[in-house]
Amino acid sequence: MKSGKLKGDIQNKVTSESGKLLSIFEEKNSCNFYGYDVENLMKETSELRKIITKRGTLEILIPLCCSNDPVRYLTFRKSMKGFSSKTLTIRLKELEKSGILNRQSFNEIPPRVEYRLTPKGQDLVESIINLLQWMRKWSTS
Amino acid sequence: MKSGKLKGDIQNKVTSESGKLLSIFEEKNSCNFYGYDVENLMKETSELRKIITKRGTLEILIPLCCSNDPVRYLTFRKSMKGFSSKTLTIRLKELEKSGILNRQSFNEIPPRVEYRLTPKGQDLVESIINLLQWMRKWSTS
Repeated sequence: MKSGKLKGDIQNKVTSESGKLLSIFEEKNSCNFYGYDVENLMKETSELRKIITKRGTLEILIPLCCSNDPVRYLTFRKSMKGFSSKTLTIRLKELEKSGILNRQSFNEIPPRVEYRLTPKGQDLVESIINLLQWMRKWSTS
Repeated sequence: MKSGKLKGDIQNKVTSESGKLLSIFEEKNSCNFYGYDVENLMKETSELRKIITKRGTLEILIPLCCSNDPVRYLTFRKSMKGFSSKTLTIRLKELEKSGILNRQSFNEIPPRVEYRLTPKGQDLVESIINLLQWMRKWSTS
């Protein structure tokens, strides 16, 4: 298929500024979507992509990257500056509905609500951690 | 610090439905943000987080996950159904400005414009691929 031809091209052409082959090409086997059909990938990911790309979703997952304990509603509220409590509430419900977060409310005064990751959510957070590492690595500020 | 206490708790408490320890806890060393301050992480990632979480940015990077060749403007246009060409143009400019994409225009008739990943962009795409793999794995459709 096409990938054989491309592989040869890459060996000759695609190098970084230092002249070294970029890591993504060195570890070809790790790139599972090389040569994959874009339209298929768009379709296959559409359901969860819709949730993940919504405004605030990534930010909600950040406190859950920093702790193995459940996170309280008030902690999200505090860390999500610039987002309204309405947006936060809607996103938390979406993440619960899509099986990423588990919500537990305690019958206390004042009332306490906690969220923890499901196994699906744990799996997602591993990708988010990579993304956050990239942000820190390439940040210019 | 706090992490010592938490580690003990996790060994006893946090298990998946099948009773097995969740993978994120097994490989503690792989979780670089465990015990990290959320507010710091929000600050450190704010610049690039702003770009990555914008509507359409993830979708622009998908064709670049499937190929090692530069991607033409028309290919983005085709794969980004539901996004206006105005949104696409703005996002491409933002990704170019932030050093994720390189734009090259060819003086041809009809004019040809191509985009390829910079080393910073290559690095990002490796995280995006993980995220796409998660979406495919956990998709219910």
